[in-house]
Amino acid sequence: MKTLDLDLAARSYPIYIGAGLLGQAELLTRHVAGTRVAIVTNETVAPLYLAKLRAHVASLQPVEVVLPDGEQYKSLEVLNRIFDALLSARCDRRTTLIALGGGVVGDMAGFAAASYQRGIPFIQVPTTLLSQVDSSVGGKTGVNHALGKNMIGAFYQPHAVIIDTDTLITLPDRELSSGLAEVIKYGLIRDPEFFVWLEANLDKLLARDAEALAFAIHRCCRNKAEVVAADELESGVRATLNLGHTFGHAIETGMGYGAWLHGEAIAAGMAMAADLSQRLEWLTTAETARIEKLIRRARLPVRAPGSLSPARFLELMAVDKKVQDGRSRLVLLKHLGEAVVTDECPRTALEATLASMREAA
Amino acid sequence: MKTLDLDLAARSYPIYIGAGLLGQAELLTRHVAGTRVAIVTNETVAPLYLAKLRAHVASLQPVEVVLPDGEQYKSLEVLNRIFDALLSARCDRRTTLIALGGGVVGDMAGFAAASYQRGIPFIQVPTTLLSQVDSSVGGKTGVNHALGKNMIGAFYQPHAVIIDTDTLITLPDRELSSGLAEVIKYGLIRDPEFFVWLEANLDKLLARDAEALAFAIHRCCRNKAEVVAADELESGVRATLNLGHTFGHAIETGMGYGAWLHGEAIAAGMAMAADLSQRLEWLTTAETARIEKLIRRARLPVRAPGSLSPARFLELMAVDKKVQDGRSRLVLLKHLGEAVVTDECPRTALEATLASMREAA
Repeated sequence: MKTLDLDLAARSYPIYIGAGLLGQAELLTRHVAGTRVAIVTNETVAPLYLAKLRAHVASLQPVEVVLPDGEQYKSLEVLNRIFDALLSARCDRRTTLIALGGGVVGDMAGFAAASYQRGIPFIQVPTTLLSQVDSSVGGKTGVNHALGKNMIGAFYQPHAVIIDTDTLITLPDRELSSGLAEVIKYGLIRDPEFFVWLEANLDKLLARDAEALAFAIHRCCRNKAEVVAADELESGVRATLNLGHTFGHAIETGMGYGAWLHGEAIAAGMAMAADLSQRLEWLTTAETARIEKLIRRARLPVRAPGSLSPARFLELMAVDKKVQDGRSRLVLLKHLGEAVVTDECPRTALEATLASMREAA
Repeated sequence: MKTLDLDLAARSYPIYIGAGLLGQAELLTRHVAGTRVAIVTNETVAPLYLAKLRAHVASLQPVEVVLPDGEQYKSLEVLNRIFDALLSARCDRRTTLIALGGGVVGDMAGFAAASYQRGIPFIQVPTTLLSQVDSSVGGKTGVNHALGKNMIGAFYQPHAVIIDTDTLITLPDRELSSGLAEVIKYGLIRDPEFFVWLEANLDKLLARDAEALAFAIHRCCRNKAEVVAADELESGVRATLNLGHTFGHAIETGMGYGAWLHGEAIAAGMAMAADLSQRLEWLTTAETARIEKLIRRARLPVRAPGSLSPARFLELMAVDKKVQDGRSRLVLLKHLGEAVVTDECPRTALEATLASMREAA
């Protein structure tokens, strides 16, 4: 097992990474405050791992909340089911909430923990590659709104993140690829050496080589922890973690939540950001080609859906959280391995990217 | 105008108290971050004061959200209307939200500000006595759940609180009395000198004497600011501000939100807490009689509704936020002017209070 710390002074917390961690009761229980726990999971993950977790906390009157599976259920309405369950079971302020599942479960359970009685302790147990390398670390929680992704939420840090790499064995191929989008992101925005490693080792990741996966997860979490420690509330550098997300969120919202997986939308969004960066002459054609090739090898899309017109795309992008005083801000690549946030991208270049980076309709 | 500061290091903010403050544009605009505002109010307050406020921010593309009036609308569903409006108008992260109204508007707008895009700036402009002396100061925000009051929310501090005492001129008598419950509370829990002042000056407050009201509001805000500065997240002394609230919330939830005004329920709850404190021999019969007399003079109830049986009352109290590891914690009076939080109240004494402090059914 490897341990990283996310350094946030009094609110610092450990990230444990390793095989078989779900079997280690003490790892979980040492972070339980109070005398009670509630486990939030979904109907796909519950049959696989809930019994294992439940066994560790049997003496803590566990409440179990099993949500439907999918991005389309990441809503205020479904969030309320968590509150219903906690209140019906009379969970008090010292109940520790455990999120067992992927990004949707973690984001919703985290926001429920942030809001229930104005805040209760919580622990992230991510079971997908995407949540292990990205969403479980850093305290972003929330739900979607019909008009925009992740528009309602809180910054709320967990007490611990427990990443059992064995859970990836049961992950569907499409979900594995989705997670690889966020893995590739770290190489693009701040870790060029890791990008090169990925070019050499992507096939091992696709083949679920345990050692390669553990290395990549640790490397991603280290990158993420450094960025979040430097800028918890995203007033600066943390925004670079959103490479591809302004485009990607527009795809997710525009196509209807759940149609594209989050990582798929982010993959296309990163390819679009690379294209736009090349138009600004920040990336070379060769670099853009390398990026696109790696994304394709991860079995991910590099084009926006043809059914979303550029005009509709611009409309969807206008409600992005990075908009400031009405100006769109985009995360682009100054170099391969270095992201910047800019509000000075010419509209013509953006329109050219939107027009050229579409699948045939 | 008087100014108080709520001292929370980097998140400190001013509380302005005075007549005619709604007419002072600069007082408001100096606290607007970004280039846009959204005003959340309700259908009772809008016709009275919205135009005045709107005039000050006309250049800031103001979005207006007018909610229905009443505690029964303090729900997740109605909260979502605020998000709908903000998203439809494409409000970004640098939009400043202004809460114009009483406690329900302030609590909901505050939670909306805490959650919209994971947090935007907000300003409290309370227009009822209750919100001016209590709920607008200190950062407690949230909504009710069918199973419990204020169960979903956040600690989220405003950038400023602007209290225009002239707004009390239009306040209905019943609402004025409701506010007096929280005013009396400060005397009971930590300011015995103010309790004596209230015994001498209550009639002036009921007659809406401007000078007496301004004095009382300032005194209450000073007390509240001191307590919140010492314990923002209610891990200790802040809980004493909840005198009467465990009983009161049970009444509000049990009778259906909106049937009793918040201050009415708190008034009965404080009388019950005093009765229980006397059973523990912390208060004398004479002190309990003084407390009950002052509450009655404020035209407030001193008994729980007869339709709530003691058994139902206990059930409702079990979901209070002050419950810890399954043990009920009550705010009681050690002396007139000194509150304590205790989990050692004998069940028999509590049951005796519940049985004796009811209206005839």
